Amino acid sequence: MAGTFAFAISGATAARKRNLDLFGICALAFTVACGGGIIRDLCIGAIPPAGLTNWHYLVVAIIATGITVGFFPVVEKLNRPVLLFDAVGLSLFAVTGAEKALHYGHNGEVAILLGITTAVGGGVVRDILLTRVPVILEKEIYASAALLGAVIVVLGNYLKWVSADWVAIIALIVCFTLRILALRYHWNLPTPANNKTDLDKQK
Amino acid sequence: MAGTFAFAISGATAARKRNLDLFGICALAFTVACGGGIIRDLCIGAIPPAGLTNWHYLVVAIIATGITVGFFPVVEKLNRPVLLFDAVGLSLFAVTGAEKALHYGHNGEVAILLGITTAVGGGVVRDILLTRVPVILEKEIYASAALLGAVIVVLGNYLKWVSADWVAIIALIVCFTLRILALRYHWNLPTPANNKTDLDKQK
Amino acid sequence: MAGTFAFAISGATAARKRNLDLFGICALAFTVACGGGIIRDLCIGAIPPAGLTNWHYLVVAIIATGITVGFFPVVEKLNRPVLLFDAVGLSLFAVTGAEKALHYGHNGEVAILLGITTAVGGGVVRDILLTRVPVILEKEIYASAALLGAVIVVLGNYLKWVSADWVAIIALIVCFTLRILALRYHWNLPTPANNKTDLDKQK
Repeated sequence: MAGTFAFAISGATAARKRNLDLFGICALAFTVACGGGIIRDLCIGAIPPAGLTNWHYLVVAIIATGITVGFFPVVEKLNRPVLLFDAVGLSLFAVTGAEKALHYGHNGEVAILLGITTAVGGGVVRDILLTRVPVILEKEIYASAALLGAVIVVLGNYLKWVSADWVAIIALIVCFTLRILALRYHWNLPTPANNKTDLDKQK
Repeated sequence: MAGTFAFAISGATAARKRNLDLFGICALAFTVACGGGIIRDLCIGAIPPAGLTNWHYLVVAIIATGITVGFFPVVEKLNRPVLLFDAVGLSLFAVTGAEKALHYGHNGEVAILLGITTAVGGGVVRDILLTRVPVILEKEIYASAALLGAVIVVLGNYLKWVSADWVAIIALIVCFTLRILALRYHWNLPTPANNKTDLDKQK
Repeated sequence: MAGTFAFAISGATAARKRNLDLFGICALAFTVACGGGIIRDLCIGAIPPAGLTNWHYLVVAIIATGITVGFFPVVEKLNRPVLLFDAVGLSLFAVTGAEKALHYGHNGEVAILLGITTAVGGGVVRDILLTRVPVILEKEIYASAALLGAVIVVLGNYLKWVSADWVAIIALIVCFTLRILALRYHWNLPTPANNKTDLDKQK
């Protein structure tokens, strides 16, 4: 729930900055919070998607909208805690997404791909709706942290060295730590095009 | 069908203004007319989606394309009737979308969310394909009218004060009236960001 | 597989040109290669989608990323062979997409629409993620070739003049030939808006 809330806040904040109206802000908060999970549920055949049936998500989105609209200057200053919650949400969504796919009897690759999708899908849909290139494709170790978390879940469930609960906890901690370290030290994946530009400059 | 046609016309007109070719115009007309319904059918497990199996939709999209391409100056002048049909389509899609979700045994929240999705989904996909921020997120009481219509359908079916047919008729009339009044008097939902800008100006 | 690879290369090249990072390039290569098939599988109820369960696709996407990043100047010069593979992929995806829909017991219209979707869906998602109007909607006989291939598959399976294998081969050849001819002679579908502009100029 903390993760859903952080995701909803990030959606509402982005929507507010683009001058959307109240409905738009609420729709975007809901989309970021539930979009990834809905895509996952469609792909594994969990119909109707949990994001639509469970009213908690909708309430969280509405509360996040209320807070973002009512206390916007405060929310803007709270950038750091929001990023923290966002990292919590990322880890939780990646791990639970991968576990749910395994639970529905799908293989490891499906679980990894859908773990990532659950974690980053909402953010991608948000960026598409606001017509910008999804930020996760451009920079920062974000989706990669989700990938690592999902891989640990899948490996853990195949190797069965420890119980499923411990696997989930380890995956959560690794994913969260990697994301926080990447934020702290501005780690980025290499961008091939930039390397080339640098080379061009050296010539 | 009138609603599908109005939606297809709106898609074809938008496509034509962006210099798409014949296939693009037809694809966009079809997308706007059926996109919302297809997303709804995927979410409630009505597979394959009605928009794909029923050739009426495709024919309507092709006819709308033909009319838009052949008589573009006329269509542009018919802005008012097209908006009227569009409001009819909005109401019909919202009400039938919510009813179909209930009919498939889903709960009220799913029905409300999918009623809105059916009504506005096509327009959102159109705006995404033409790379602009979906207009329904920015202004005007459009999705909100669909929301109201879907809520009436769900409440009516729970409370059972009147028969399901009457519920649908009341929801249609309320949704249509709200949309027409919003068009007539330029009602908008409040946009928080603008309010803030106004405050800044006063300082 | 040749088609998947060509599609993945086209995705990776587009992503690299937009300065995405390694993860983004790989994600886009995978999306272009599998996006159309995943949408098709969701619509016909083949869950989980083949693109997610079959690890071949993922490996192809990763290899395509590696090649594009490692040998970018070479790939850029290979524009012609990539277009050739792309035409192969287009034909294969359109025909197999239509066949799979028929195989799942859906009617001819579903098969035609999903054949096109399989063939062009990945490219449309790529353009949406890179925030540009999908190129297939604007120019060139691309989706139209896929449409023709899918129509031949459906007609062939209804009329049963020749065996299903021959139908597939004929559809492949027609679709591929049309695409190659369109590339060679720069055939475009008429764009109504441009015609009008021309008329205006003559006045």
